[in-house]
Amino acid sequence: MRPIRLGMVGGGSGAFIGAIHRIAARMDGHFQLVAGALSSDPDRARTSAGELGIRSYDDFNAMAQAEAAREDGIEAVSIVTPNHMHADPAVAFLRAGIHVICDKPLTATPQQAARIADAAADSRARFFLTHNYSALPMVREARALVAEGALGDIRIVQAEYLQGWLADETQGKQAEWRTDPARAGAGALGDIGTHAWQLASFVTGQVPSHISADLSSMVPGRPVDDDARVALRYTSGAKGGLWASQVAVGQENGVSLRIFGTKAALEWRLQDSERLLLTPKDGPAQILTRAQDRSASFRTPPGHPEGYLECFANLYSDVAAIIRGDDTHAGRVPGLADGLSGMGFIAAAKQSADRDGAWIPVTP
Amino acid sequence: MRPIRLGMVGGGSGAFIGAIHRIAARMDGHFQLVAGALSSDPDRARTSAGELGIRSYDDFNAMAQAEAAREDGIEAVSIVTPNHMHADPAVAFLRAGIHVICDKPLTATPQQAARIADAAADSRARFFLTHNYSALPMVREARALVAEGALGDIRIVQAEYLQGWLADETQGKQAEWRTDPARAGAGALGDIGTHAWQLASFVTGQVPSHISADLSSMVPGRPVDDDARVALRYTSGAKGGLWASQVAVGQENGVSLRIFGTKAALEWRLQDSERLLLTPKDGPAQILTRAQDRSASFRTPPGHPEGYLECFANLYSDVAAIIRGDDTHAGRVPGLADGLSGMGFIAAAKQSADRDGAWIPVTP
Amino acid sequence: MRPIRLGMVGGGSGAFIGAIHRIAARMDGHFQLVAGALSSDPDRARTSAGELGIRSYDDFNAMAQAEAAREDGIEAVSIVTPNHMHADPAVAFLRAGIHVICDKPLTATPQQAARIADAAADSRARFFLTHNYSALPMVREARALVAEGALGDIRIVQAEYLQGWLADETQGKQAEWRTDPARAGAGALGDIGTHAWQLASFVTGQVPSHISADLSSMVPGRPVDDDARVALRYTSGAKGGLWASQVAVGQENGVSLRIFGTKAALEWRLQDSERLLLTPKDGPAQILTRAQDRSASFRTPPGHPEGYLECFANLYSDVAAIIRGDDTHAGRVPGLADGLSGMGFIAAAKQSADRDGAWIPVTP
Amino acid sequence: MRPIRLGMVGGGSGAFIGAIHRIAARMDGHFQLVAGALSSDPDRARTSAGELGIRSYDDFNAMAQAEAAREDGIEAVSIVTPNHMHADPAVAFLRAGIHVICDKPLTATPQQAARIADAAADSRARFFLTHNYSALPMVREARALVAEGALGDIRIVQAEYLQGWLADETQGKQAEWRTDPARAGAGALGDIGTHAWQLASFVTGQVPSHISADLSSMVPGRPVDDDARVALRYTSGAKGGLWASQVAVGQENGVSLRIFGTKAALEWRLQDSERLLLTPKDGPAQILTRAQDRSASFRTPPGHPEGYLECFANLYSDVAAIIRGDDTHAGRVPGLADGLSGMGFIAAAKQSADRDGAWIPVTP
Repeated sequence: MRPIRLGMVGGGSGAFIGAIHRIAARMDGHFQLVAGALSSDPDRARTSAGELGIRSYDDFNAMAQAEAAREDGIEAVSIVTPNHMHADPAVAFLRAGIHVICDKPLTATPQQAARIADAAADSRARFFLTHNYSALPMVREARALVAEGALGDIRIVQAEYLQGWLADETQGKQAEWRTDPARAGAGALGDIGTHAWQLASFVTGQVPSHISADLSSMVPGRPVDDDARVALRYTSGAKGGLWASQVAVGQENGVSLRIFGTKAALEWRLQDSERLLLTPKDGPAQILTRAQDRSASFRTPPGHPEGYLECFANLYSDVAAIIRGDDTHAGRVPGLADGLSGMGFIAAAKQSADRDGAWIPVTP
Repeated sequence: MRPIRLGMVGGGSGAFIGAIHRIAARMDGHFQLVAGALSSDPDRARTSAGELGIRSYDDFNAMAQAEAAREDGIEAVSIVTPNHMHADPAVAFLRAGIHVICDKPLTATPQQAARIADAAADSRARFFLTHNYSALPMVREARALVAEGALGDIRIVQAEYLQGWLADETQGKQAEWRTDPARAGAGALGDIGTHAWQLASFVTGQVPSHISADLSSMVPGRPVDDDARVALRYTSGAKGGLWASQVAVGQENGVSLRIFGTKAALEWRLQDSERLLLTPKDGPAQILTRAQDRSASFRTPPGHPEGYLECFANLYSDVAAIIRGDDTHAGRVPGLADGLSGMGFIAAAKQSADRDGAWIPVTP
Repeated sequence: MRPIRLGMVGGGSGAFIGAIHRIAARMDGHFQLVAGALSSDPDRARTSAGELGIRSYDDFNAMAQAEAAREDGIEAVSIVTPNHMHADPAVAFLRAGIHVICDKPLTATPQQAARIADAAADSRARFFLTHNYSALPMVREARALVAEGALGDIRIVQAEYLQGWLADETQGKQAEWRTDPARAGAGALGDIGTHAWQLASFVTGQVPSHISADLSSMVPGRPVDDDARVALRYTSGAKGGLWASQVAVGQENGVSLRIFGTKAALEWRLQDSERLLLTPKDGPAQILTRAQDRSASFRTPPGHPEGYLECFANLYSDVAAIIRGDDTHAGRVPGLADGLSGMGFIAAAKQSADRDGAWIPVTP
Repeated sequence: MRPIRLGMVGGGSGAFIGAIHRIAARMDGHFQLVAGALSSDPDRARTSAGELGIRSYDDFNAMAQAEAAREDGIEAVSIVTPNHMHADPAVAFLRAGIHVICDKPLTATPQQAARIADAAADSRARFFLTHNYSALPMVREARALVAEGALGDIRIVQAEYLQGWLADETQGKQAEWRTDPARAGAGALGDIGTHAWQLASFVTGQVPSHISADLSSMVPGRPVDDDARVALRYTSGAKGGLWASQVAVGQENGVSLRIFGTKAALEWRLQDSERLLLTPKDGPAQILTRAQDRSASFRTPPGHPEGYLECFANLYSDVAAIIRGDDTHAGRVPGLADGLSGMGFIAAAKQSADRDGAWIPVTP
């Protein structure tokens, strides 16, 4: 099958997430990167594009128009810029009819998010958001188990995303923009809290109706939150907790999800991402592996560990299928709704924290 | 050395915690059980005492007076009744000059707690509270590490105590009184939440100044909380979370404590109670075992697992030493202050929950 | 119920395993230690007995006769001396009609073992051997699962017992006699290899028919083996491996057992002794806990860790039941047959090692 | 940088390892697959090549000549056929001056291996063997630790590779050729035993001088071994064990390596491939992660799990660097010596098993 022609905005040499997206895009052979506006610095953009052997643009607006006009122009674009730079290119490419694969969180501000939503509504192109953890096989299996009622009614949802890399004063390029309110929009809340939020929503099929948050800047002088504790209430009566921290010393990427229902419980940890613990109320815990997974979201037999790059690639492969007209798995690929939900989460959490933990409804 | 003569109130045949206390008391040979008012049902009291070969009393008041009057009367008494029946015998024995070893939580009501406090203040006898988890070797080592500054300034404290045994409607004697507000005082909050509270306080050496709580009765119609989520704030600026649940299906006794400081983090889980994870900010995580423990709170070489009964026995052995005049380790044996702190925790949590999660100061 | 009167040979102050036996004997209240020949050094024997408040003997022969003659004499005796000192007291007490609870391995030499076997055959008293690991609840459950065919036909048996404490030149009292051929009989092979051998035999219900061994003294100049690798062949066609080492740096007591059958596999590790992994051929692995155990070999609810002392106490409690006339669980208490099997294992392993790994039949 | 032009022999549609190699080759962008003789069935070869959009050959000899003659011919070829079909194409491409990346084990017979060795000796092209586990970051770090003396003198080496997928009678294409002596050469011994052998050799820097083996065909009628237990002796005096099984029910890919030295021990398991346990003799165990790794063999920050595909890609990236003239990391890429060592291992193990476990020297 002919690879889909892909463009990229951001991801110049030295970037972290751009490189991840490029590997993910090519892993299963469904995409070929052919063009990019890889940096806001024209020199760096051109050098980076040269290294990759792709068409280079100084400016994503020009790129959107030029590519849309080409016979062999890109069919999709990956946006891997800092949060505040998601909306402008997303809108430009959506308007040009080019599918958008955007890194998370959706944007730095609700206003930016609304602009993407408007553009998406008016476009025949699709919008995808790379909340990659929800594409891990055992996470997808967790969702299937919940959906088929294996847990009974859900009572408790507990999600965590813990990192320790920002335990000290901010240093380095990656840290810098992530702790800048203007560029990031929020700290731990946006960068990793939205991952936990989406993960919990994805698996449970429910979104909390109200939240109460306590946000901290544990490192003195840091202008964004680096520790976010959020209590969750669901319309169903379920309760939960979400904890995102970037000052949790020793934690590399401590993502976990625990769900307790009336019939059974599920536990999953990124540190042991290929196993899913399912504990029926009256029986022994079961360790599910890809041998039990039904999502077929992998390339190798069970026991051959797949991980971070592969779950990103799962998203890209699903996106490729959708672009090619197969919507079978569209429901499992995060998109605009997830992005807007994440923005609603950030906004409600900030509002609650400002009001000393008052319970705030989450919209949309 | 002559064993200390011990009495017991509660713990008749079929009781759970009474049997535990008896094993703990005799494990290291420091106590000999000689008398008891083992049940409020006189027949059962006598039969139970007969099985144990000890003096039987129908009534703890009579027992306190009679034993105090005997040359060979008991020197200490274990109180292992339901929560609402702690205060009366505790007061009676303290007034009789007999040391009290009381099961947790302190009492069912603040009023009862105050009566114990008054009696203790007026007595030359000591009062001990069996928050047993804090007597595990690796928990004691955790406390030593915090105390010597290995973690730097503490930023985050996360304590959990999860059980699943009350996930359905209440059945059985043990469940019955624990879900009866009059006898228990509180549900998960009191029965296991106070354990988590004491554990966190014991290890960190700090008690939260304010808390915000969300209490649930997940099982319809249950008159007490069976899931308690509590957010913690410390005077130092540290934040934390405490989660106690008795509807966490599949959890047997999921006790855990995670502490993150500016220099290092600690993680301990009851499920793996003989190991303590210490992760310095810049180095690899270390798995400490009893080979590294400095509390000498064990009987066997590292690698020979000790557990629940042994940590109870650690408390009894420390109590024996104190009774015999050696106060060296008095600081590590929970007592009245821990009990009152636990009662303050329960009261503040209930008040916060009644006020939709408002932050409430914890006293005393 | 009246406690059984117990004596002890060996176990003077400072001894390791004697103290363990004393705790185990009193844990469930079925025994009362009343007499002892606690040391071959008369002064130490008397002092130790005085500390314990029991009758003291300078000599176990005198003790056997005197206790047998007393109305209130001991009914059972624990022998907790070094290996070469098991046979003489065992024979003396068996002849005196007093039940013997002997620490493992059976003896230091086959000749000594034969003397015990003869005495046991002529005595109405019972002989028990404290291979304690086989008394852990999940090990007993493992045996029940194998017995009921849950694993199908057994193909592979893999047992390990790894320690690191003798990685350097021998130091200290405990190490000294264990590395002295005259007192210990064998090194790792006898001290811990026999544990692994008994554990595998206990759970599988099979004893290897032939073994091939490679014995090493990794520490230069050590006169006994400190690393023993043994290949196993069973009459059934099953194969296996047993590895015992005392130079496995970092291992505290790395006991493990893995069994693979045609239908399912079992895995158990002392480090996580309260869990048993059962993996059916086509299903997910199951984590069995005491909630699934059917041996009732515990005192506390699942999730409250029990361990080394408790499994020893399980043996003592079963022995008490047998002495009192209840043979229900006799089959699960190790005895003479286990001891002789262990001696056969040691002898065959030495012979194989002397013949460069030739396959040697195991007798008896 | 321009991608290296790559060819492939074997790996037609439906193949397992061919697909893995293709992903690995493209993951880091260093290779572009342009030609293939993907199947011995010409139709399937052509169809498969068509799906991949590459030049198709019916025959690898023709491919070697044609590609060598093209200006834009392949520079390297991946050989991903069954074992007995490694030698012929390897010789053909080596003679054509095209670098060979060959799947393991080297060949099905020693004669085939010798032919590759001869061809490699006469060629300016390089020969690489994809023992992929040795390219995992924590395995490379393990090797570095041993090399720098962190373990002291090595005493014990224990390697395992356990699978359960062949526990029943052979079914399916992958199983079929792997249990056919003519095509596979050996069973568990060759397919996974050589992985364990190479892994142990890679990390320790030592190869056993003598081995003693017990080979079984646990499934009745199976013409190759499905369980191989091998005892190891090193010239240094170190001992070890290697166990490979394909009937270990429930094991997906249970690869593990444990090394005990005079100063410290190392433990690594594929199931938890991103962590390496280092236990100094007197200190606590340390959990090393990629944060401590010095091989830089990864693409994502520590805590973002990488796995099987990535370690394959590590090899491809190192191969690319070598082909481009950078030999810096040549020492860590398995090649002919590893392949010949594996063949020596297989031959010696078979010979030992035929002689009832006699110790056989391993050559070369």
